[in-house]
Amino acid sequence: MTGSDFLQLDPSQTPRNGRTAWLAERLRAAITDGTLGVGARLPATRVLAADLSMARGTVAEAYKRLTEEGLLVTNQGGGTTVADLPVSAATPPLPHLREASPEQPLLEVSSGMPDLTSFPRAAWLRAERQVLATAGSEELGYADPQGAHRLRVALAGWLARSRGVSVAADRVIITAGVTGALSLLAQVLRDRGVATCAIEDPGADGNRRILDYWMDDITPVPVDEHGLDVTGLAGTGERAVLITPAHQFPTGVVLSPQRRRELLTWAQEVDGLVIEDDYDSEYRYDRTPVRAVHAGAPERVAHISSLSKVLAPALRLGWLIAPQALHDELVRKRWATDLGSPALPQLALAQLIESGTLERHLRSLRLRHRERRDAAVDAIERSLPGCAIEGIAAGLHLVVRLPEHLDDAEITARVRQAGIQVQPLSQHRFNPGPPGLVIGYGPHPIPRLQQAIKSIGEAIRPLLRQR
Amino acid sequence: MTGSDFLQLDPSQTPRNGRTAWLAERLRAAITDGTLGVGARLPATRVLAADLSMARGTVAEAYKRLTEEGLLVTNQGGGTTVADLPVSAATPPLPHLREASPEQPLLEVSSGMPDLTSFPRAAWLRAERQVLATAGSEELGYADPQGAHRLRVALAGWLARSRGVSVAADRVIITAGVTGALSLLAQVLRDRGVATCAIEDPGADGNRRILDYWMDDITPVPVDEHGLDVTGLAGTGERAVLITPAHQFPTGVVLSPQRRRELLTWAQEVDGLVIEDDYDSEYRYDRTPVRAVHAGAPERVAHISSLSKVLAPALRLGWLIAPQALHDELVRKRWATDLGSPALPQLALAQLIESGTLERHLRSLRLRHRERRDAAVDAIERSLPGCAIEGIAAGLHLVVRLPEHLDDAEITARVRQAGIQVQPLSQHRFNPGPPGLVIGYGPHPIPRLQQAIKSIGEAIRPLLRQR
Repeated sequence: MTGSDFLQLDPSQTPRNGRTAWLAERLRAAITDGTLGVGARLPATRVLAADLSMARGTVAEAYKRLTEEGLLVTNQGGGTTVADLPVSAATPPLPHLREASPEQPLLEVSSGMPDLTSFPRAAWLRAERQVLATAGSEELGYADPQGAHRLRVALAGWLARSRGVSVAADRVIITAGVTGALSLLAQVLRDRGVATCAIEDPGADGNRRILDYWMDDITPVPVDEHGLDVTGLAGTGERAVLITPAHQFPTGVVLSPQRRRELLTWAQEVDGLVIEDDYDSEYRYDRTPVRAVHAGAPERVAHISSLSKVLAPALRLGWLIAPQALHDELVRKRWATDLGSPALPQLALAQLIESGTLERHLRSLRLRHRERRDAAVDAIERSLPGCAIEGIAAGLHLVVRLPEHLDDAEITARVRQAGIQVQPLSQHRFNPGPPGLVIGYGPHPIPRLQQAIKSIGEAIRPLLRQR
Repeated sequence: MTGSDFLQLDPSQTPRNGRTAWLAERLRAAITDGTLGVGARLPATRVLAADLSMARGTVAEAYKRLTEEGLLVTNQGGGTTVADLPVSAATPPLPHLREASPEQPLLEVSSGMPDLTSFPRAAWLRAERQVLATAGSEELGYADPQGAHRLRVALAGWLARSRGVSVAADRVIITAGVTGALSLLAQVLRDRGVATCAIEDPGADGNRRILDYWMDDITPVPVDEHGLDVTGLAGTGERAVLITPAHQFPTGVVLSPQRRRELLTWAQEVDGLVIEDDYDSEYRYDRTPVRAVHAGAPERVAHISSLSKVLAPALRLGWLIAPQALHDELVRKRWATDLGSPALPQLALAQLIESGTLERHLRSLRLRHRERRDAAVDAIERSLPGCAIEGIAAGLHLVVRLPEHLDDAEITARVRQAGIQVQPLSQHRFNPGPPGLVIGYGPHPIPRLQQAIKSIGEAIRPLLRQR
């Protein structure tokens, strides 16, 4: 096999920038969809570089990245072959797109899930092996309820680099995901007599239900094109608010600088707490990520986030950085709840951060998700002409606005009959508002995404014309 | 100084639950910031309790906790004063954090830990690899808060074989260890108006603190040579009790058949709940393990256990089988707390159970621990002649009874100077009782165990002769 035949890669298509990422992506796709089977031998870097008119280092770097992700292995003789733990094993079969009956699986383009087929299984296993080979037996005993020190140190560095959040490791609390952090905060607020909380409207359905479980009441505050309406918030009399400033769920709005200032002033004035769910901040495609709100007022903001969108929700690993005044009570509550998170996955994650594997994984995911976003936007413009698309600067989902006369729940039901599941914007609303569809593009390969959006268009277009 | 003036504590501010923690926190803060100086005398528990409208036991427990933390000392006359070298209490020391000084590592023959060096690292890694190679990507997403179905099926079989507990998989709730189960139960009981709970006296210090965190009050019930005194329990008026029937911690007593019957009759009569911590049941050396109490009255018993003593506490994996009437509320609380346990370790554990690896591991551990127990008993008979040894039929620890005139906390301090850490029986007591030492033999190779016991004997023997 020579380079030019290999995967039908066309030298004229290689981009001028980001060639390593481009090549890695092509190889990854070929391994995932089975074009390159287990054990398949890749061309020598010298050969492929010459055929694609690339620097040999670029090819070597792409191979290296995939090796680190566990997709490729380097053999004794120096050759490179496809590893025997392919992620393709996990790719769900393409569901039928037409005539879905209750028995048939739906193609779910709804919630903000990442591409779980890209979970770096081999890298994770390698990290676990490393941890099991080196951890002392005391690390298998009862641990610090606040989290493994090594992970807290690694996360403090990661947060400083990627989110502008500057904290010492002893202020990082490892939690069981965002839900774990939110439930601790809600309970500690309650213990202190703050038994209600403001939330964004529209806002994430899941978090709303968690808060609703622990609190006496939750108060919706409207979100407009600048983010949360802080004047509205002040009018509620609440002293705590849950907000997704980096990429609001579901609207995709980024909280404006003016609103950020207003929010922190509000918190100061009412002696309140801003709970910053740093949702989706990792996936900012066209500009540098906005800095966390926490950076502006660490004693007024509880910053929470997780790896559910970068690695997998099933890891149940997240973190919480809270004002000093709440810190001890939060750790104590975590202790009383379950003595803290399991140790081995914490140490494996620390290993992935320290080695730079997580950062590389995130870069490759960001690229993949951006391509999917672009494809989704193209397809929506073709299939749903005239509908505004919002929230595309970041994240794993976007919102398609529908004409005012349409009922998005009804539209969702109609689309579902075509075998596609999307979420109506109204599902995430407290009070009525303009209709829309929440479409998650994260988990889906481009052809499947295009097909799904085409089907959505076919289901809706007759209604658009009715107007 | 009377209670009401003391620290300006306001009786109307005492919280409804976690009163011990609240009071301990206030006292700790006053000692740390110097409000209570070295040598300052605290009000008698009776006086402070009356002034704050609290149970006297609550005040006594707060004092005791701070005494254990080294902030308070109890004097000859029974008074309590601020210790003269208070450790910095900026962060409240949590129960499982050890305090061995770096210069002088202590040989800790105390708590009931297993031999963590025998954690089957290779088998665990193999199971993880198997899981990562075969799990679908949906298993990396948000999972069932009740636990992975595959693990619940495997555990239902394991419980039927090893504990006589017969339940369907859909009744098994996977928890974050015994603490995770206990905190769920305590909260759900509270939600239903049962805000107090009976516990064994002596009983496990750790579980007592967890219950004390979530409950208004905990009521000690004496344990004698047949186990929990059920007549005493009935006299308390409590409707819930936490008990370790298989191998009582710390006395090592197995609940007698007569007491079992009494216990279940009591539960029926008061419409109550028995929380069965199936502590140590795996390590029964000389006879077949006793059947779980749960088997006799599944709708009156919540059966909880974990793998902390067979694999490692750091896994944070346990289970809970509750009466049907509580099941849905418990699962819902787990959902609201953290959406459930991480998936990969659950699947790895299922793999270990299905393949028989866990069973083989347990058999080999049981053999190893029995040899250690025999060696410990021999050494104690040589080094501490005349002291009775109790609780040796099962478990990872035993109790050495001391002559009545000795103070076991004092003995422990003396032994500590010889570089050996044991637990005084009084640490696990609520009300005063005969002195003893809790010696954990699980983690230690025989020569080290013999050496430690020899040192303990040398430290104590002079006192034994004094009598």
